[in-house]
Amino acid sequence: MITSRDQVTDMIIATKVRKGLKWAHAAEAIGMSKEWTTAGCLGQMTFDKAQAEALGKLFELPDEAIAWLQIVPYKGSLPTAVPTDPLIYRWYELVNVYGTTIKELIHEEFGDGIMSAIDFSMDIQREPDHKGDRVNVVLSGKFLPYKSY
Amino acid sequence: MITSRDQVTDMIIATKVRKGLKWAHAAEAIGMSKEWTTAGCLGQMTFDKAQAEALGKLFELPDEAIAWLQIVPYKGSLPTAVPTDPLIYRWYELVNVYGTTIKELIHEEFGDGIMSAIDFSMDIQREPDHKGDRVNVVLSGKFLPYKSY
Amino acid sequence: MITSRDQVTDMIIATKVRKGLKWAHAAEAIGMSKEWTTAGCLGQMTFDKAQAEALGKLFELPDEAIAWLQIVPYKGSLPTAVPTDPLIYRWYELVNVYGTTIKELIHEEFGDGIMSAIDFSMDIQREPDHKGDRVNVVLSGKFLPYKSY
Amino acid sequence: MITSRDQVTDMIIATKVRKGLKWAHAAEAIGMSKEWTTAGCLGQMTFDKAQAEALGKLFELPDEAIAWLQIVPYKGSLPTAVPTDPLIYRWYELVNVYGTTIKELIHEEFGDGIMSAIDFSMDIQREPDHKGDRVNVVLSGKFLPYKSY
Amino acid sequence: MITSRDQVTDMIIATKVRKGLKWAHAAEAIGMSKEWTTAGCLGQMTFDKAQAEALGKLFELPDEAIAWLQIVPYKGSLPTAVPTDPLIYRWYELVNVYGTTIKELIHEEFGDGIMSAIDFSMDIQREPDHKGDRVNVVLSGKFLPYKSY
Amino acid sequence: MITSRDQVTDMIIATKVRKGLKWAHAAEAIGMSKEWTTAGCLGQMTFDKAQAEALGKLFELPDEAIAWLQIVPYKGSLPTAVPTDPLIYRWYELVNVYGTTIKELIHEEFGDGIMSAIDFSMDIQREPDHKGDRVNVVLSGKFLPYKSY
Amino acid sequence: MITSRDQVTDMIIATKVRKGLKWAHAAEAIGMSKEWTTAGCLGQMTFDKAQAEALGKLFELPDEAIAWLQIVPYKGSLPTAVPTDPLIYRWYELVNVYGTTIKELIHEEFGDGIMSAIDFSMDIQREPDHKGDRVNVVLSGKFLPYKSY
Amino acid sequence: MITSRDQVTDMIIATKVRKGLKWAHAAEAIGMSKEWTTAGCLGQMTFDKAQAEALGKLFELPDEAIAWLQIVPYKGSLPTAVPTDPLIYRWYELVNVYGTTIKELIHEEFGDGIMSAIDFSMDIQREPDHKGDRVNVVLSGKFLPYKSY
Amino acid sequence: MITSRDQVTDMIIATKVRKGLKWAHAAEAIGMSKEWTTAGCLGQMTFDKAQAEALGKLFELPDEAIAWLQIVPYKGSLPTAVPTDPLIYRWYELVNVYGTTIKELIHEEFGDGIMSAIDFSMDIQREPDHKGDRVNVVLSGKFLPYKSY
Amino acid sequence: MITSRDQVTDMIIATKVRKGLKWAHAAEAIGMSKEWTTAGCLGQMTFDKAQAEALGKLFELPDEAIAWLQIVPYKGSLPTAVPTDPLIYRWYELVNVYGTTIKELIHEEFGDGIMSAIDFSMDIQREPDHKGDRVNVVLSGKFLPYKSY
Repeated sequence: MITSRDQVTDMIIATKVRKGLKWAHAAEAIGMSKEWTTAGCLGQMTFDKAQAEALGKLFELPDEAIAWLQIVPYKGSLPTAVPTDPLIYRWYELVNVYGTTIKELIHEEFGDGIMSAIDFSMDIQREPDHKGDRVNVVLSGKFLPYKSY
Repeated sequence: MITSRDQVTDMIIATKVRKGLKWAHAAEAIGMSKEWTTAGCLGQMTFDKAQAEALGKLFELPDEAIAWLQIVPYKGSLPTAVPTDPLIYRWYELVNVYGTTIKELIHEEFGDGIMSAIDFSMDIQREPDHKGDRVNVVLSGKFLPYKSY
Repeated sequence: MITSRDQVTDMIIATKVRKGLKWAHAAEAIGMSKEWTTAGCLGQMTFDKAQAEALGKLFELPDEAIAWLQIVPYKGSLPTAVPTDPLIYRWYELVNVYGTTIKELIHEEFGDGIMSAIDFSMDIQREPDHKGDRVNVVLSGKFLPYKSY
Repeated sequence: MITSRDQVTDMIIATKVRKGLKWAHAAEAIGMSKEWTTAGCLGQMTFDKAQAEALGKLFELPDEAIAWLQIVPYKGSLPTAVPTDPLIYRWYELVNVYGTTIKELIHEEFGDGIMSAIDFSMDIQREPDHKGDRVNVVLSGKFLPYKSY
Repeated sequence: MITSRDQVTDMIIATKVRKGLKWAHAAEAIGMSKEWTTAGCLGQMTFDKAQAEALGKLFELPDEAIAWLQIVPYKGSLPTAVPTDPLIYRWYELVNVYGTTIKELIHEEFGDGIMSAIDFSMDIQREPDHKGDRVNVVLSGKFLPYKSY
Repeated sequence: MITSRDQVTDMIIATKVRKGLKWAHAAEAIGMSKEWTTAGCLGQMTFDKAQAEALGKLFELPDEAIAWLQIVPYKGSLPTAVPTDPLIYRWYELVNVYGTTIKELIHEEFGDGIMSAIDFSMDIQREPDHKGDRVNVVLSGKFLPYKSY
Repeated sequence: MITSRDQVTDMIIATKVRKGLKWAHAAEAIGMSKEWTTAGCLGQMTFDKAQAEALGKLFELPDEAIAWLQIVPYKGSLPTAVPTDPLIYRWYELVNVYGTTIKELIHEEFGDGIMSAIDFSMDIQREPDHKGDRVNVVLSGKFLPYKSY
Repeated sequence: MITSRDQVTDMIIATKVRKGLKWAHAAEAIGMSKEWTTAGCLGQMTFDKAQAEALGKLFELPDEAIAWLQIVPYKGSLPTAVPTDPLIYRWYELVNVYGTTIKELIHEEFGDGIMSAIDFSMDIQREPDHKGDRVNVVLSGKFLPYKSY
Repeated sequence: MITSRDQVTDMIIATKVRKGLKWAHAAEAIGMSKEWTTAGCLGQMTFDKAQAEALGKLFELPDEAIAWLQIVPYKGSLPTAVPTDPLIYRWYELVNVYGTTIKELIHEEFGDGIMSAIDFSMDIQREPDHKGDRVNVVLSGKFLPYKSY
Repeated sequence: MITSRDQVTDMIIATKVRKGLKWAHAAEAIGMSKEWTTAGCLGQMTFDKAQAEALGKLFELPDEAIAWLQIVPYKGSLPTAVPTDPLIYRWYELVNVYGTTIKELIHEEFGDGIMSAIDFSMDIQREPDHKGDRVNVVLSGKFLPYKSY
């Protein structure tokens, strides 16, 4: 009996390690970006039927797990409010150090509102650099103005 | 007597509101990007003497405050571990929802290590879009591989 | 020197108590709903110039405070993560008890996404009831579907 | 041996996903609103004997689970004090941003007291809107005045 | 300028210590119970005009403070979530140790619902006892059944 | 192998639900009050041999569990510092709102010291009331004066 | 205007440092142990009139402060739940490491109950030792058995 | 497969309850004090080979568990930062109420440094007293002065 | 099915205790320092294929576990934000007491930036000393200056 | 009136920034290491009379502040349990990532006990390196074995 999406995530990861798969394989299997696909496989996004079945095949999942992939999950991928993993912490640190800067500049440009984390996409790329390669990330979110009424 | 950088940040913000200045003015005054300049004015970066003096002139700061702008500050711009402001929270939410995804994809591409938050730059732009303008953010951080020894 | 919106909120509240004003007076003065106006006066929304000036007159604010009313504030109106005030706590309790229910029903109807807290309005009304009057609240938020990419 | 209501909630959810049921089916089976029924199935409300048996049939529960559905549960449906799931977080954000506003307006209308979260009902509806459909939620709670003595 | 009820509470306490008053004097001055009066003077309840004026006289408060006494306060009298003061902690301990017991017994007697903390009164008395006097407290709260709908 | 009292509590609750027992039955079985008996069955009190055996018979416990009932447990019955269950939260709210009031009044009557939570008893009764029945709770704790030395 | 005992504690400490006094002087002035006197001067105990006046003379306190010394304070001397100061942390560590040991041994000897922290005394002495002097502390607390009823 | 000391602690406690052993029996079996032995059995201290084997015999432990008793454990015996168990809480309360007092008196006698929690011993005794027996605890820790360099 | 690196760490530790291995054996088996090897075995570092296989042989791991050793782990080895174990706490205390000192001195020498925890090595040695042997630790981290842009 | 060491730290820092002093100047003025002197000036160590007077002269402190420098301070230099400043966070990260490694290796070498944070010294040096200079830190702490008794 599968009682939560976390169990499906565990199955996917276990198979991925055992078979030496890459997330790119999963993305290819369903024809979506590697960013969105990975988030979905890690239990943060919802797949449609065809996508779930393709992933089920790739990761050798039982039918019950394939059904769970089509259910909107309880999101949030980190075990603690302040992440302990150094790679993820650096992102938390960016929010901590640059948070008010981001706020000021977006408000200066757009007025009161937010940058959507829902109508949102992310693209992670390697940028070769002779002083050491760089991680380049493009975040794109719709600006949503606060409604006054 | 000024005893912390926070007091200088307060002075800058008070003058900015009173005189109706923009962060772009500050960036222009010291010839740096608006992102880095804003972070610095908000107490997260260190200015050199010329920059500090230019900002002192713009924001009508006393000499003691200009000296403080050249001191490395105690960083961290948010009052709570989980930010309450909706705009900043959306970024925390990105880390929460996409954190493990970012981790997986960077490791898949680069191996074990982190994306630097120090050798790092950020660029925030408005992207016109007929379905509603978007906030486009480019993050660029050097990849630092874990040293084995 | 005013260094934060909180100081302006304090001024507004002090005058309101001293002069015995009601939030309805403030809403009327700027021609907006009482819900949005109150939120703004409590430091959660941004006013335009005309609104800020009208409020400045009503609450006898100095020019510097009127300028602050037009600046996007750092939002979040509660002193603790779990509110201690009984009236506000009941709302937190609703989120705690009904949170997963709300999530399930919105997803069942709309699919994966959220109900916006930005493109959002609220209307609070008294509903007479012989078993004891009721508070009726209508919340209306745009549904924002998660983007897949 | 079933030792907590959580185990029954797990059984219900597992069956729901496996059989592709909707909460509306459960509500229909017991003749109550979908909001209250869902909350109950998720372990927040208490069912009477007939309701528990109808749900037991729908979700293929053992007798012991049906007995548990009639026991008042330990309420609280969220794993963390500040919810990580974006949909539920938006509601927490509403409490955070509008909390003091709600407090002020209810007190202005009713005096000191609270809006009950017990003598309370909720209705969630889809409101078609050409700028994007909206989630409309009506909350209705009895006003309970503070007793002075 | 008085900007919060806390400042009025401070004034009341300062005068009380300076003049050596007892809470019983305050209760007598407004003709209410000592329990409710004390809670109000400590910033947890709202007074009507006559009560506020009587207290203003007793505690030598300025007019602005008397106005504040008639405003519904932001309730919550403790500086930390878990109280450090031994007397108050013992009450928190009772909730911690007996919390589930109280829940079970009230549900066994009344079904699903709560004991109101709003339609509520408290009476604290000294009970002479040769093995050491006892504190006797009677709590009386209306039972509010959960509404099903 | 039973390694903690919690496992015994689970057994008791599971049997209680399955057999439809009431706490009153347990209290009767051992000849103590329903309040103390319930607290004990929920893992907060220690039973003597005869009581443990009577409970073992009623709840069909193995010998090892009966031995555990005679061991002083690690007390504390709530999963979080601030309880999420509405009924129990109301008691936490009483401590939060009335905490300083209780402190003031007990000190005014008794001087510095505490009301014991150990030499303590509790009695929960239903009080019929035409405006809605009330929960009446009598708490009785020995006053313990602070020793000076 | 003195509004809390903390202000009195600050006055006492400021004078103590300025005049180079020792806590032993304070203890001698009121004829009590140095442990209890120090706790009282640090805002944790209540003095009687004669003690308060003697301390007022020693620490050059105004009359209002002397009145405050006779008021039962809100106890708790540490700024954080887990103390950061190394000396005090070692005591917290003892509770953390030996807590369950202390519990087991007291229960083995006395049965269910607690060691009072109210009917309690403490004596701190230097014990000369050629391998390094030791701090010897004797704690004495009345055992209070849990009442069954 | 035993993967942590906690599992061994569980085994010891389970056998102790089942066989009705006392900690004094364990202390006697290895010829050490009851305080240190109990702490070790509860997973806070490290035993040598002979001690581990004697305990293994007494508590009927498998060889793997005996090996674990000789491994330095991850110390800390309490499930929460602020203990919920009343007996252990009283000790936490002592640290909270007397923490700064202890700090002041040790520094007054010894200068800057700490009382060791490592080169430390504890002795718990029953002291008969006609007003109620007392728990007497002697703590002895080496004073360690802060090194200046 | 292995679903996380923690399970592999558990296997390694269980074998280590059972076979009486030392971390030095593991370091030798893969030809790396004992510090880095131990961190890796405890789930904080990533091994290459040859290293993972050598460790698999030493610790008798199944193939699936050997695959996991080559996957970048979710780092962070402590169960609580403030560590309870005395040895590890002392390091946390160093950060707490000396944190601002370290910050000041590194900034005085290098300007704004950090000492890398990634391009980092550590060496732990025993230093014989007649007053008691000392633990000597050398930390070496690359200085990374903050980029201005 | 100076009521805490923090006020003295503020004075020292304010003067240091205003006069452009370095910590090396302070260390030189009192003939101690720069590490210990900085920690002391930041309120973590206790100075003797001569040192306090030399620092008083350098930082232009009033007599009352010089007296405070000779009083043992309440230690702990960070405003939050998890530090937000990136430089200091890296040290916290080291404890988090390497904590169990350090524990294992010290115990493997020394047995059960700790590395003292009191009988402790630290030396921070710049190490030139053509791939980027490094921060070299030597920590030296006495090993203190756990006493068994």
